[in-house]
Amino acid sequence: MTSTITETVRNGVDTATLFATLDAIKAQPEIAAFQFRAHNKWIDGAHNRSTIKDFYAACAEDTTRATGWELDAGEPAILVGTDTGPNPAEFLLHALAACVTTSLVFAAAARGVRLTSVESTVEGDLDVRGAMGLDENYRNGFERIRMTVRIAGDAPEEKLRTIVHRGTDRSVVFDSITNGVPISVDVLTG
Amino acid sequence: MTSTITETVRNGVDTATLFATLDAIKAQPEIAAFQFRAHNKWIDGAHNRSTIKDFYAACAEDTTRATGWELDAGEPAILVGTDTGPNPAEFLLHALAACVTTSLVFAAAARGVRLTSVESTVEGDLDVRGAMGLDENYRNGFERIRMTVRIAGDAPEEKLRTIVHRGTDRSVVFDSITNGVPISVDVLTG
Repeated sequence: MTSTITETVRNGVDTATLFATLDAIKAQPEIAAFQFRAHNKWIDGAHNRSTIKDFYAACAEDTTRATGWELDAGEPAILVGTDTGPNPAEFLLHALAACVTTSLVFAAAARGVRLTSVESTVEGDLDVRGAMGLDENYRNGFERIRMTVRIAGDAPEEKLRTIVHRGTDRSVVFDSITNGVPISVDVLTG
Repeated sequence: MTSTITETVRNGVDTATLFATLDAIKAQPEIAAFQFRAHNKWIDGAHNRSTIKDFYAACAEDTTRATGWELDAGEPAILVGTDTGPNPAEFLLHALAACVTTSLVFAAAARGVRLTSVESTVEGDLDVRGAMGLDENYRNGFERIRMTVRIAGDAPEEKLRTIVHRGTDRSVVFDSITNGVPISVDVLTG
């Protein structure tokens, strides 16, 4: 019954929609300009909360998200918090793992590879003497990040490895962290 | 009754604990080596989930967190997802807002400034032709990020501005994103 239907969903990704999106951008490149946002409010101590919902894409404000999300951040006791949420550095590591995973899953779908599992661990090393202002020999941010990805699917090992590297090569967050992004800061008082 | 007690909690931060932590690190610098982690598992399509709990600090694995957190990532429809969570790029912006906020709240507490409100918006500009592999003239990551911080408290405007800049100057995530972090990737198959 289904043998005459070309299946377009692979790894949970509708590849027909994916390729149609790529074609739409090729035909009208200005729709490729996106702006993502987070709105954050301090609550108390190391506890603050971001609201994520609105974004700009395809020459308009998005109207498809009925509701957004609230993300609570905190710090563990050793960093003078009360564990009201993951700490900001941990959210950064999650962003990295999530972005590489999605990028490689999409790459596999586009290349006809069916994945059965993708798991990763991301570890970031940090000497807090930097951020605490105790020793200028240490930077404030992570010194280094290690990512270990375990992948399984219906392709030879070498192809699976290529897909992981395609994921890192095309990841928004991987590029943002490895190569850096300029950040401007405006301050309003009162 | 309370006038003879030196209050150490300011902005929800126990400054006595904060200063004791700084003194402890000065006395024994090796306790400043931290490692944070995220463990991620692909679920389907653009949906994946990180678990955040374990970390290393003060020469030992942390044992204070009874439970951790699960963070679901996704993509909106226009990026071929089903909004199973904020997307990875949005998590990165949240990490930045949360880190700068905590850093500046701690800096204010240490300097004796009582804050009444801190709110911020972070916007990241992205041309998806980069990450989609359609045009090599565009990078994969954010082109630029703008952060707007509104702060109020019991200090003059100039001091409040200085505190915000102290927050960005000492933020783990702000430094990681502006100056970049080397990321190594290991791939395991099967």
